[in-house]
Amino acid sequence: MSRFWSDINRVISPYIPGEQPKNEKYIKLNTNENPYPPSPQVVKAIEKVLNDSLRLYPDPTCEDLRLAIAEYYDLKKEQVHVGNGSDELLAFSFLAFFNPNGLPILMPDITYSFYKVYTSLFKINCEKIPLEDDFSIRPELFYKKNGGVVIANPNAPTGMFLPLEDITGILEHNPDQVVIVDEAYIDFGGISAVKLIGDYPNLLVIKTLSKSRSLAGLRVGYALGQKELIEGIDRIKNSINSYTLDRLALAGANAAIKDDAYFQEVRRRIIMTRERVSNTMGEIGFKVLPSKANFIFVTHPLIPAGELFQKLRENGVLVRYFKEPRIDNFLRVSIGSDQEMDSFISILKSILHQML
Amino acid sequence: MSRFWSDINRVISPYIPGEQPKNEKYIKLNTNENPYPPSPQVVKAIEKVLNDSLRLYPDPTCEDLRLAIAEYYDLKKEQVHVGNGSDELLAFSFLAFFNPNGLPILMPDITYSFYKVYTSLFKINCEKIPLEDDFSIRPELFYKKNGGVVIANPNAPTGMFLPLEDITGILEHNPDQVVIVDEAYIDFGGISAVKLIGDYPNLLVIKTLSKSRSLAGLRVGYALGQKELIEGIDRIKNSINSYTLDRLALAGANAAIKDDAYFQEVRRRIIMTRERVSNTMGEIGFKVLPSKANFIFVTHPLIPAGELFQKLRENGVLVRYFKEPRIDNFLRVSIGSDQEMDSFISILKSILHQML
Repeated sequence: MSRFWSDINRVISPYIPGEQPKNEKYIKLNTNENPYPPSPQVVKAIEKVLNDSLRLYPDPTCEDLRLAIAEYYDLKKEQVHVGNGSDELLAFSFLAFFNPNGLPILMPDITYSFYKVYTSLFKINCEKIPLEDDFSIRPELFYKKNGGVVIANPNAPTGMFLPLEDITGILEHNPDQVVIVDEAYIDFGGISAVKLIGDYPNLLVIKTLSKSRSLAGLRVGYALGQKELIEGIDRIKNSINSYTLDRLALAGANAAIKDDAYFQEVRRRIIMTRERVSNTMGEIGFKVLPSKANFIFVTHPLIPAGELFQKLRENGVLVRYFKEPRIDNFLRVSIGSDQEMDSFISILKSILHQML
Repeated sequence: MSRFWSDINRVISPYIPGEQPKNEKYIKLNTNENPYPPSPQVVKAIEKVLNDSLRLYPDPTCEDLRLAIAEYYDLKKEQVHVGNGSDELLAFSFLAFFNPNGLPILMPDITYSFYKVYTSLFKINCEKIPLEDDFSIRPELFYKKNGGVVIANPNAPTGMFLPLEDITGILEHNPDQVVIVDEAYIDFGGISAVKLIGDYPNLLVIKTLSKSRSLAGLRVGYALGQKELIEGIDRIKNSINSYTLDRLALAGANAAIKDDAYFQEVRRRIIMTRERVSNTMGEIGFKVLPSKANFIFVTHPLIPAGELFQKLRENGVLVRYFKEPRIDNFLRVSIGSDQEMDSFISILKSILHQML
């Protein structure tokens, strides 16, 4: 605490990202990174721009990348905003569409914890809508007066997918509010709401290249919606930072979007690994929530998750543990390569053997 | 305008950056880019990390880069925050230290126009302190009750440098407010306020690698101050975006900071070119404000700046023209390479010949 901090700075509780160890000795299943490298085209594209232009500002409108993304989703470039990771886009969107001190925005009680941080920073009231006992979202609970809606689909950290008809229900019952659907994990088996954009001017879909495109280290996300929503985000971005994406990120992201064959293969492999690991975890006594993400959310009936988290860590495996109501007996385990997951299962089995 | 925009989104006037033409046919002297490429070490450092780790998140604490910067300025890493360009750091700092709807923050009436945009977005009251008739800052005018101070030194778009004793005066008369000194252009002949950090807990110095380190395309800036100010910015950053710098930017910036010999040579060359061009401009009838930046701010007694701007553009030279009170008869001209400036002068002479 400092006397120089602004009033809001004194009361916020910043987000704490998952641990990023400086060495590589861990099997790192804690921040939902992709175990496979990005498309080889990404490296080629970055090498191409690396030598000739770093002294010059990047294109502040990010036109080429927006065109590539628009083409991929059959949208117009005016329906695409790109930014420095999806977190930044979420922050900008909260500022762009939700009013301070107004009607509360709605979000699930268990979801990506950064949403709550944005509401604190921007003084947006917020009401948490409880998930059902099985951690599913009951859409009818979002049919009430509100200042906006934000939903992660699949949800985090549960990994559970909300069917499109339920998203549609929420959109239809909130025609005057922006509904943000955060699809960071949509490419691992869910069905994207992007196809609803033409029909719902209140729908904003936010995505990232960090997970399914293996580019967590490059910091690129994008928002898709009708033109006036995108223009609303543009206005906030241009009131904070004219150039949020550097030249290398623009080039790399463009190449990643265009290499669809590679993308399809990577996500297919992760889905296969996830299904296999989910089954095995069930066989060795875990309850595994049905995941459409690149992670699984698991609990054991006999061993407290906090203890298991520690044991795994001592044995060289990092997973994520959230010490929060309702989920403090769960672990979130990112889907790594088959080899990593085999090691994880083997270590897990020996820990269970010790503890049971 | 959209019914979905938040109240604040409806009233802000976003910053408009200088034009970034998509082709290279212009002599581009409009956005204060460095005419020389970044240190060759930058490209090597980026190539080194390019192949092995883009799938993984970057270090959210940016420790290596902060250590390199701390060492360069003889500070501790806790006195350094790094971010996605100095604009982002300014935005974060306004949120971190200035209160909405409180006492006005003070800034010169003519200065970097993004400051005013931040105050609008964050509802911070603002009082513009008039520059003297010769465009110098009169420090005593900042010795009044306020909610904070922001000064660009050298100032933009004038290029004029405020001596350190005047900065000290402002710091001493505002012991309870944060004084932001934006040193984007300090490396071209000014004297940095960094050495005052130990004595003034209210001093925050913000710098960028875009200008003197030739890295406008990589998006890296940094803030220097006592630990509690840096922690204040960290808290805002971690409430918006955990990972503002990608792996390539971190590696490249680190290499740029460490190659001091290259940096010294580049800034020496730009200073020499600036002095030569300033003299020539004077000889051909322009008034040139005394600049310690990588640009000059010039006016002609007979030819309106707006017309000259257009003529230069038609002849393939982009400079910057601000149609704003007090400076609407000035042009800001970035210092390019000697060859570019020779072409600029030659084109300018022929335009003058036509128009006079």
